[in-house]
Amino acid sequence: MKTRDRIIEASLELFNEQGERNVTTNHIAAHLGISPGNLYYHFRNKHEIISELFERYAAQVEGFLQRPTGRGMTMDDKAFYLEALLQGMWQYRFIHRDLEQILESDSALATRYRQFARTALSSAQQIYQGFADAGILRITPAIAETLAINGLIMLTAWVRFVATVSEPGQAITPAMLRRGVLQLVQLESPWVSDAYRAELDQLLARLDVPFAVIVPKINSEPEMA
Amino acid sequence: MKTRDRIIEASLELFNEQGERNVTTNHIAAHLGISPGNLYYHFRNKHEIISELFERYAAQVEGFLQRPTGRGMTMDDKAFYLEALLQGMWQYRFIHRDLEQILESDSALATRYRQFARTALSSAQQIYQGFADAGILRITPAIAETLAINGLIMLTAWVRFVATVSEPGQAITPAMLRRGVLQLVQLESPWVSDAYRAELDQLLARLDVPFAVIVPKINSEPEMA
Repeated sequence: MKTRDRIIEASLELFNEQGERNVTTNHIAAHLGISPGNLYYHFRNKHEIISELFERYAAQVEGFLQRPTGRGMTMDDKAFYLEALLQGMWQYRFIHRDLEQILESDSALATRYRQFARTALSSAQQIYQGFADAGILRITPAIAETLAINGLIMLTAWVRFVATVSEPGQAITPAMLRRGVLQLVQLESPWVSDAYRAELDQLLARLDVPFAVIVPKINSEPEMA
Repeated sequence: MKTRDRIIEASLELFNEQGERNVTTNHIAAHLGISPGNLYYHFRNKHEIISELFERYAAQVEGFLQRPTGRGMTMDDKAFYLEALLQGMWQYRFIHRDLEQILESDSALATRYRQFARTALSSAQQIYQGFADAGILRITPAIAETLAINGLIMLTAWVRFVATVSEPGQAITPAMLRRGVLQLVQLESPWVSDAYRAELDQLLARLDVPFAVIVPKINSEPEMA
């Protein structure tokens, strides 16, 4: 692998595991066993690495978040989107955890993010409308818009929500993200047509993760002495 | 008013208008026409002011976010909660805009926030269950839990969502927050019993704010020359 790509991969790994703000370019160079000078030859600073990672994330999401053309949508499409969203959240979870701080310190990235978020909103709305056109969801265009907005907020805020309510220092796990996707599906579940209810229930059952994985039950039954 | 209270009120005003991170204790003292020394006599640092503001916010929310006892719930309760949530969001909007950064730099406040969020989740779930018991919502306890979680995320993430997708430097307006509360009501609207549908539609109509107040339509029709 080229050094440039190795830097990107190592940065993603370290950002995800330790949080972006705890990882410096020196850490990344040391992790790869290269000199800081070699790293700076490829990236002038950490912002440039983060921008590149964001572009990869955005390209991935914009790649799959498309309404298919030339055919009606099916419940398999729904399973596909959810799986792809889960993968993106997990693979780039540092972006979801630190989004505000990352955008705060890089106004060019904030502009890029704004464009990405608006594209994602518009695509999500078209996808919900696609499910309506296929008879899977019984919704108006106004509800498709509301679902797209609530869905985007849910997905972008989930990792931080988990971080603020779970025990301090608790690591983000795939199960926690699956619960986030379950919350997303619950947004639309009341709108599903009767003919597709059983299929949706199967999807929900596959995602089922109790909320106690995030917030352990605190007031459990006292043990009998 | 006592100096201590004047400091709190002025800090809230400045934080809300300029963002917490752009306001120092020196700004606050200058705004009040008092010496920095006088301010430090009351608060050792900005963290202490923020903690006090958070306690006031938490006390306000915990005060109204309660299921009434000894009577069934009505649609008037729903209007009451929404109005109170809107007021809290507006009055303490700096907390909503900068939550992560505030908690990041003060671990005692992060612990306090965790407790607040868990209490709010539990209260919200009981309130949704109250609407179910009154026949207003047709939901199971599992759906009440999902609604409470999605509702808390929506409300706490809304101001930051607006900040990341709207035009740079655009101020937060009451209309933007009203749209957030509309999104919250949409979460539960499909679960409303037929008998209460008309009343809910009235509530939704009162909150109606087009999404274009947040993200202006970019691709509007080109004018004919």
